[in-house]
Amino acid sequence: MPDLAKTSPALATRDDCAARDRADPLAPLREEFALPDGIVYLDGNSLGALPRRTAARLVDVAAREWGEGLIRSWNSAGWIDLPRRIGDRIATLIGARAGDVIVADSTSLNLYKVLSAALALQRRDAPRRSAIVSERGNFPTDLYIAESVAAASGATLRLADGERIAAALADDVAVLLLTHVNYRSGRIHPLAEITRAAHAAGVLVVWDLAHSAGALPLDLHGADADFAVGCGYKYLNGGPGAPAFVWAHPRHSERMDREQLRQPLSGWLGHAAPFDFAPTYRPASGIARFVCGTPPVLAMAALECGLEVFAAAEPLGGMAALRAKSKALGELFIGQVEARCAGLGLTLASPRNADERGSQASFAHADGYRVMQALIERGVIGDFRAGQPDEAGGDAGAGAALALDLLRFGFTPLYTRFVDAWDAAEQLHDVLASGAYRQERFGRRAKVT
Amino acid sequence: MPDLAKTSPALATRDDCAARDRADPLAPLREEFALPDGIVYLDGNSLGALPRRTAARLVDVAAREWGEGLIRSWNSAGWIDLPRRIGDRIATLIGARAGDVIVADSTSLNLYKVLSAALALQRRDAPRRSAIVSERGNFPTDLYIAESVAAASGATLRLADGERIAAALADDVAVLLLTHVNYRSGRIHPLAEITRAAHAAGVLVVWDLAHSAGALPLDLHGADADFAVGCGYKYLNGGPGAPAFVWAHPRHSERMDREQLRQPLSGWLGHAAPFDFAPTYRPASGIARFVCGTPPVLAMAALECGLEVFAAAEPLGGMAALRAKSKALGELFIGQVEARCAGLGLTLASPRNADERGSQASFAHADGYRVMQALIERGVIGDFRAGQPDEAGGDAGAGAALALDLLRFGFTPLYTRFVDAWDAAEQLHDVLASGAYRQERFGRRAKVT
Repeated sequence: MPDLAKTSPALATRDDCAARDRADPLAPLREEFALPDGIVYLDGNSLGALPRRTAARLVDVAAREWGEGLIRSWNSAGWIDLPRRIGDRIATLIGARAGDVIVADSTSLNLYKVLSAALALQRRDAPRRSAIVSERGNFPTDLYIAESVAAASGATLRLADGERIAAALADDVAVLLLTHVNYRSGRIHPLAEITRAAHAAGVLVVWDLAHSAGALPLDLHGADADFAVGCGYKYLNGGPGAPAFVWAHPRHSERMDREQLRQPLSGWLGHAAPFDFAPTYRPASGIARFVCGTPPVLAMAALECGLEVFAAAEPLGGMAALRAKSKALGELFIGQVEARCAGLGLTLASPRNADERGSQASFAHADGYRVMQALIERGVIGDFRAGQPDEAGGDAGAGAALALDLLRFGFTPLYTRFVDAWDAAEQLHDVLASGAYRQERFGRRAKVT
Repeated sequence: MPDLAKTSPALATRDDCAARDRADPLAPLREEFALPDGIVYLDGNSLGALPRRTAARLVDVAAREWGEGLIRSWNSAGWIDLPRRIGDRIATLIGARAGDVIVADSTSLNLYKVLSAALALQRRDAPRRSAIVSERGNFPTDLYIAESVAAASGATLRLADGERIAAALADDVAVLLLTHVNYRSGRIHPLAEITRAAHAAGVLVVWDLAHSAGALPLDLHGADADFAVGCGYKYLNGGPGAPAFVWAHPRHSERMDREQLRQPLSGWLGHAAPFDFAPTYRPASGIARFVCGTPPVLAMAALECGLEVFAAAEPLGGMAALRAKSKALGELFIGQVEARCAGLGLTLASPRNADERGSQASFAHADGYRVMQALIERGVIGDFRAGQPDEAGGDAGAGAALALDLLRFGFTPLYTRFVDAWDAAEQLHDVLASGAYRQERFGRRAKVT
């Protein structure tokens, strides 16, 4: 397959971009989505777009499976198998074996489960290891959950800057918790390399794939990774608040089986025989022990629709082709912004090298909130991520300090076109050069930004 | 309002039942539900039926709010307020104040949160209190979660038979965890009385309202209760795996505010300022600290539809009228079974007194599984709850030992008719008297029963 990123200098006009879109073998996938007219949607890394098939599926699950099948649908419609069935679809995207992934709860809750499990394993092997290390610029919920797991386990949470992770793997460290692609900078941590270094240092690694699954090819099993969790509503297009997923390397699941280790959120559907209604807990074997309560069937049906679009992408080149397009889109956008917006207050906060960057491009701007509001008013939807003015630590590379307010633009190659990246760069230039963003009405922060 | 239960002896024929249905002021509520023809559905206490409005709402939320609004709908469609907005609807059903209930996660996870919080409060006030007491016949997930919270907190879990709960409130007990209506027997624990006794003994009480909310009038605030959780997919008709709810008495929330106490599942949306992306956790005030991850918007929309039906029931008498009808339905069914099925191997496993019985009637039968399968084949859907042959302890009253296999029939007065209760009793008699249930094909247990 040609490396599209290498050919992006040829995109010198909007017509070039339109021609590239016409020639794009992935272009038909955009038809899988219901996107509003006149919108350039560059926030699929916060909330993925609506697959066209989802609304009809929801009606079918509600009207036929729930309405007509009623309680019988737990068996007849296969509801009880949804956590594993949808997990198998995710497994193909993250380099996991079928049967090793389940869909359940939220990313935060799944982190609680696997962090607790990883600490419990280390407590048996290396009881003096009592620290969890994470990245200072990690997504906050990961840090909040790690704080809480640490408190519950008598462990400590230690934060390091992204580029100093390897150096932080001291001999009292039990678990490293990293988000594979940083939510602010988009920097990719080298998953296999860090896993190897961690194992050499006696440390287990929990990977949060929130900004990776569905955005880049992943090979968890090949990298001999330990645990992973991820999000259903970003690149997987499962809908707002979609259920999340969790993976454990089978060597850990099997050991937990042998030693009857449990994870703390031990709800009835993670029991070995839930319908025996036994009074004491006995964990299900394998990854099924990470299920807790009753699966949210409607939300799961929507997530399955999102994953079916990835199945449709498979004959068109799958994740490798999507990643190549994502890099080309990022190159086009960053190159256009660099060419047009010099001197307008933007600083690239993502790695300039596409190989080190996830499917997003972030720029720091002192008035970032208002700039993004002005862009949204013009139909270019990215998002704003506030800086932490009281944080001294720097984010991973590319000058993206945690203190800076960021404009974040996500490229979701299932539906983002080259003309979208072009138009977004043009609008960004126009908003900045005209000073339009300085208007009063862009100054109010809504609840969610 | 006349006590319908008292007048049920008049229902001596199926025609009497049909006449009662015609005269029932609550009868129009059945039109709110999409129920399949030819089915008598008596399992709404496991999965509530589909409200007619739900499918269209799901399409609207998917197509308009998600598809067109995209990320903007967190503000413009009020998604971010869903946990509290839907919580306010539930508050009206359980005797809680507006603003004190949130919808989140599953019943199991919410139990983990409030049990942990209750133990943390007791640890400050009475550090030598280190036991959680629960009912031996409680729904297993409650016991599994209590086991786990106890293990994480250095506490112990102690089980008592239902009738010996008051006697179990020793001076080392920190928390009592009870399901208000037992899922097997349907026996109601007197909520205000037990709460009063527990407080007098220095014990906090966590109530699981899975089989009460939407089935009986509740007054948590009036009873000065401590914490409660409940289920969205049984009597609230929120759909399979619907989100659950959690309530804390404001005296506890306010104290947790003052003392900066957190619950352990500290995800980002339970943070005081989630969109500041601060690196350390600071719990939101009030009940909002019990939110964890991103709200499941589609599932929440379905739950809201279920609750809107209760709002429609309000001008028809609300929970008091629903409870009166539920008692009358139970009286009719039990009376008919007693009259017709003597000598056919059934033993009532629910209290005979309607005031002590939730919205269900359970009968033990040695061949209960096959009897229920035969009933389902005839279009009468109840459910089967397996006994625990190795459990010595007895369930609460009415001779319903935990060892017995039960046939469970739920009466959901929003949509169950008097003719349904009549027909169900007739079919039960026919299945038993004919021996039809002994056929080979009823012998195989499906995954979910």
